[in-house]
Amino acid sequence: MTPSTSYHTQHAPLGAFASFTIGRHGARGGFGQSLAGPAQQNVFVGYRPTDDPTWRLLPFFDAGPQRGAEAFTGEAGSNAAPSRRALRAEEFTRELGWASDVWRSGAFTFGLATPWDRAPDPSRGPREAQRSAFAPCVLGWVEFDNRAGPAPVELVFGIGDSHHPWRPVAETAPDLVGFANTHVFGYATRPSPDVEARQAFAFEQPKFRDHRGLHLLGPENALVFQVPAGSRRRFPIILAFYQAGPVTSGLATRFHYTSLFRDLEDVLRHGLATQTSRLRVAARRDAVLAASSLSADQRWLIAQATHSYFGSTELLRRAGRPLWIVNEGEYRMLNTFDLTVDHLFFELAWFPWAVRDTLGLFRRRYAYRDTLHGPEGRRAPGGISFTHDMGVSNHFTPPGRSSYECRDLHGCFSHMAMEQLVNWICCAVTYALHTGDLAWLRREAPTLRACARSLSQRDDPDPARRNGLLKWDSDRCGPQGSEITTYDSLDVSLGQARLNLYLQVKALAAWWLIEEALAALGDHDGATRARTSADRLVRTLEAKYDSTLTAFPAVFEGGNRSIILPAIEGLVFLLHLGRERALRRRYPALLARLGEHLRTALQPGVCLDPASGAWKISSTSTNTWFSKIALAQHVARSLFPEALTPAARNGDRVHADFQRGPHLGAHAMVDQFHSTTSQPLGSLYYPRGVTSFLWLKERASPTP
Amino acid sequence: MTPSTSYHTQHAPLGAFASFTIGRHGARGGFGQSLAGPAQQNVFVGYRPTDDPTWRLLPFFDAGPQRGAEAFTGEAGSNAAPSRRALRAEEFTRELGWASDVWRSGAFTFGLATPWDRAPDPSRGPREAQRSAFAPCVLGWVEFDNRAGPAPVELVFGIGDSHHPWRPVAETAPDLVGFANTHVFGYATRPSPDVEARQAFAFEQPKFRDHRGLHLLGPENALVFQVPAGSRRRFPIILAFYQAGPVTSGLATRFHYTSLFRDLEDVLRHGLATQTSRLRVAARRDAVLAASSLSADQRWLIAQATHSYFGSTELLRRAGRPLWIVNEGEYRMLNTFDLTVDHLFFELAWFPWAVRDTLGLFRRRYAYRDTLHGPEGRRAPGGISFTHDMGVSNHFTPPGRSSYECRDLHGCFSHMAMEQLVNWICCAVTYALHTGDLAWLRREAPTLRACARSLSQRDDPDPARRNGLLKWDSDRCGPQGSEITTYDSLDVSLGQARLNLYLQVKALAAWWLIEEALAALGDHDGATRARTSADRLVRTLEAKYDSTLTAFPAVFEGGNRSIILPAIEGLVFLLHLGRERALRRRYPALLARLGEHLRTALQPGVCLDPASGAWKISSTSTNTWFSKIALAQHVARSLFPEALTPAARNGDRVHADFQRGPHLGAHAMVDQFHSTTSQPLGSLYYPRGVTSFLWLKERASPTP
Repeated sequence: MTPSTSYHTQHAPLGAFASFTIGRHGARGGFGQSLAGPAQQNVFVGYRPTDDPTWRLLPFFDAGPQRGAEAFTGEAGSNAAPSRRALRAEEFTRELGWASDVWRSGAFTFGLATPWDRAPDPSRGPREAQRSAFAPCVLGWVEFDNRAGPAPVELVFGIGDSHHPWRPVAETAPDLVGFANTHVFGYATRPSPDVEARQAFAFEQPKFRDHRGLHLLGPENALVFQVPAGSRRRFPIILAFYQAGPVTSGLATRFHYTSLFRDLEDVLRHGLATQTSRLRVAARRDAVLAASSLSADQRWLIAQATHSYFGSTELLRRAGRPLWIVNEGEYRMLNTFDLTVDHLFFELAWFPWAVRDTLGLFRRRYAYRDTLHGPEGRRAPGGISFTHDMGVSNHFTPPGRSSYECRDLHGCFSHMAMEQLVNWICCAVTYALHTGDLAWLRREAPTLRACARSLSQRDDPDPARRNGLLKWDSDRCGPQGSEITTYDSLDVSLGQARLNLYLQVKALAAWWLIEEALAALGDHDGATRARTSADRLVRTLEAKYDSTLTAFPAVFEGGNRSIILPAIEGLVFLLHLGRERALRRRYPALLARLGEHLRTALQPGVCLDPASGAWKISSTSTNTWFSKIALAQHVARSLFPEALTPAARNGDRVHADFQRGPHLGAHAMVDQFHSTTSQPLGSLYYPRGVTSFLWLKERASPTP
Repeated sequence: MTPSTSYHTQHAPLGAFASFTIGRHGARGGFGQSLAGPAQQNVFVGYRPTDDPTWRLLPFFDAGPQRGAEAFTGEAGSNAAPSRRALRAEEFTRELGWASDVWRSGAFTFGLATPWDRAPDPSRGPREAQRSAFAPCVLGWVEFDNRAGPAPVELVFGIGDSHHPWRPVAETAPDLVGFANTHVFGYATRPSPDVEARQAFAFEQPKFRDHRGLHLLGPENALVFQVPAGSRRRFPIILAFYQAGPVTSGLATRFHYTSLFRDLEDVLRHGLATQTSRLRVAARRDAVLAASSLSADQRWLIAQATHSYFGSTELLRRAGRPLWIVNEGEYRMLNTFDLTVDHLFFELAWFPWAVRDTLGLFRRRYAYRDTLHGPEGRRAPGGISFTHDMGVSNHFTPPGRSSYECRDLHGCFSHMAMEQLVNWICCAVTYALHTGDLAWLRREAPTLRACARSLSQRDDPDPARRNGLLKWDSDRCGPQGSEITTYDSLDVSLGQARLNLYLQVKALAAWWLIEEALAALGDHDGATRARTSADRLVRTLEAKYDSTLTAFPAVFEGGNRSIILPAIEGLVFLLHLGRERALRRRYPALLARLGEHLRTALQPGVCLDPASGAWKISSTSTNTWFSKIALAQHVARSLFPEALTPAARNGDRVHADFQRGPHLGAHAMVDQFHSTTSQPLGSLYYPRGVTSFLWLKERASPTP
């Protein structure tokens, strides 16, 4: 079966928190600024042989009723019936690349490109390089090969916005032709005799025309291009965003790009002027992904996930300094730390300064020190940890507070002190060792040591009673609450932080990384203490293996017998830093047990959904998350390839078909879905799937 | 029958192009910035005796499904069932005043006040007076008389916004408690032990609470107030708007109030600090309307219309100078000239600088000179006229061009050169003579003289062939088009400009006003020429009376026999300037004929809808416009009271019931409706109904 082409994709510049979203058949989309999901514009793209009145359009519009001319004339039926039909799925192809999305229907082509690359540090990068990296625009084009055609052909790109009419860009910028929604987004190309601007109640039949042929009250605006018989033509279209003025509250910021571009027109001109070189950038990205040894489904998943990741990125400026945010998809929480730790691998490859800056903001503004409660009613001072996020909906929460965490809960919305402590350590050391930025590591060493102390404290404040496992809950949870992990909506197998297998293996990675970091800084005593902690934790972990389960239980209390994939998640940091052999050498028994665990997990009915074949992150929940599956797949394929049964290998196809399918495809990349039904369970329009980038490091894939 | 209380009203500060819209039962509303209709927030206002878990709320919310906690938890049913019920219509009263709107249910009161007054010239008024006049806020309060109550009572004011969570204002302003949507709007009161902020998935049962008791991810936010048993308490709530940054394109502007207030919090504080004096202002406005001798329906229509007018007002700043806009309701065209001429009377009473500034902008940027075509294919130079509008949706069109006018049309969207020429004259002279601003008139005299020449030219370029009637169409209409009037969606009785009765009587007023203006400037020759033109027009008009119709036909060609109310509309300027006796003295025959015309018109089946009793502006159309009815009523009651049959007098009740009714009440003030069915036909959320302000000048009404 040919994979479905009916799914929304976010076409998003880096750092603009904006997307041009299209792709789902029969659905609206278009330009969206800081939205939780697709915008609600009709998008008109297609062609018309001039000997036929009917336009063939890609199915990116909703033919439902709109309030048109009759709102003015008071007469029903004032609107001419539009002469347009939506192309059927079988009449066109779609090819989603890492930085492009191309639809073809016979001789007609429509393409979108988001040319992303290594991005310069916005605090010091040269201005022209920054303008290139952070231009808030997407490149589009329409093309028709009419060399064999008997008649001229018209092409169209346009928008129908029932909220209000757009403005002709040429009025303020005679060197452009196109339309804009106030100041905030729009599209344009260069004026030429082959292009005509249309604005009307129905773009294909403008009934009312002013002196220029437009009607500024028309909700539909379009560019119509002429392709003479016997010729092949391609027309560029720049799709741009520009939000001026204050963006966030709590901390006062603007978009970084406002320091690089004067206004929307400036962005449109830049897009047109640089399109050739920037399309080459996009082509390079596409080529790298295409040349990888991954399957078509895997490549598609990486491409789709990367597109949604960019849609959540937001590069701001505060008091003259850049401030990096990744929004949490539909929830729009700012820099959710348990996403930061997963975006880490992608960001280290392309813009490591983003990791550094985010860790800095967590340390400066979103660190806190707590007190703890442990087993048998014991109380103790705690240590440093970090908030779950920095705010929500463009609002920065006060220092030391998140938008998410509440008191007196055992499930969703409880605190994540253990999780975020481990996340800061893993992000910080992976950043420093990956980039070699030891100067930064030296400056952050006091925080890293405080993290080490805090980690020990959460094992047990009494050194004599430590066994390596995190089991003291933060008093921030309140007297009735306990800590959770990032897996907040799962059952106890992953929801509870205390004595949780996932978190313990991640803590092992943290200890390992602390050891390496302190050694690199010459603190050999500190390194030795970290090594001791890691060894102790490994001994305890090994003993938790349950040979009746042939796996580790998910939680080391309450008789839990769930089996979870994220048992191996924490190993990703060591793998990423190339410590695979050292790891096998140092902890062979644990690695062998984890291999057994994974083999057990990757059986249908355990962590493979018996009906669909989708990977399940827990044997006891049908709520499964793509980003975490992708991470587990990477660790599994890299460290435990023998665990991958054919059924497990088939997962990529299932996951891709789910994401392209009728339930998830309406929301661009979706993280949480039902493993049997493929219904979305949350985390729509979500950035975290970019963990699949890790797959490109497997086997013979070329370095991107 | 008690009038319905189920209708939306726009609670709008002067010049913010923003409304807090509520009132329709079961409908959403809330804070809207520059919208074409009501916003889509749930508004929670009501009370709960603390011995009962169920809140009684005014019916300003939609109980339909919203995506709540389950978006995070992945579990259906994560939301507790809310403990709220909507009060039924019979459980509360509503009283709409000129500057207030008050709901009462037993001991509970909710009020909103928009304290408007004479507004200082924003180009020179003292800063404090400007802060008071242009503060972008509405004053609200909740109150409960619990003096006889056995138990404490809680009151609530809150918002449910499914688009994204709001932010607690106290985080950035500890002297306030309330919530804001980013920077752009919000509400607050002063912190006290009696007030609690709530933010949750359901405000009445916060399931998740952070260290302060809030949950920042909650889509519902509220203030909950305590009223102890035995006490009566009233709590103020300020509802504020603040849009920073660029507002318009074409011309670059910001909101004027951004020069008076630093941010949203500054507006909230100002509202709280000045509420006592500003509520007195509102009470004075209410008292004036209440003390008038108008009927309850008339008073309600004036109050509702004035509220919608304010919602369309937009005071901007460009290059350090104020720039006044009235938006055209749902269409959001900027300063539509054929609305300006109708808003004139209200604006002259309260902020005459708005009229002066708008006329200036029309003269500087939106005047043009055209050529004409006349009967028998004759061509001629034309003269000055003005565009229909200055743009749409916060976009200023280029000089000399409107967003509305198109070529080659005979109906809606054609050009209005005659109409807007007459409108500039009527506005300019009425402004100058009403205010006594002869210095301004002297500066504008060249334009006024150009208008006089242009008016003559449109009668006939050959002085020998003039008869006073406007009959030469502008070449701007194109070879296939002809001019229309403001009555664009009516049939030919009012749609066609050429030889149209409505426009000829308005032209008579224009000549009269030119005569007076030139006489006041000492140009007695010019005045005499104007008088000659007026007299000639009157002679021609008198001859058009059709005694078989006992009326004037609406159009003096094509055998038209429609009868229209706007026959008398043009007299309003002379009436407004107190020229009633002079008019009767000078043109007694015409006045007598117009009285006959009106008597004929105000018969059921002519210009009274035979089924409903509503006034129809044309005998041959069921599309009728409230603003124009109100104007005609004022002229009729003032000049031709004998034409007002009991059936005609009953119109106010019909019009008020229509506006309060299920069809129109969803859209605040509606201008165009079907005279039989009361269905809306366009012009929703519309400012022009403020022509009803003229009624306060009738009979014994006190001067406002």
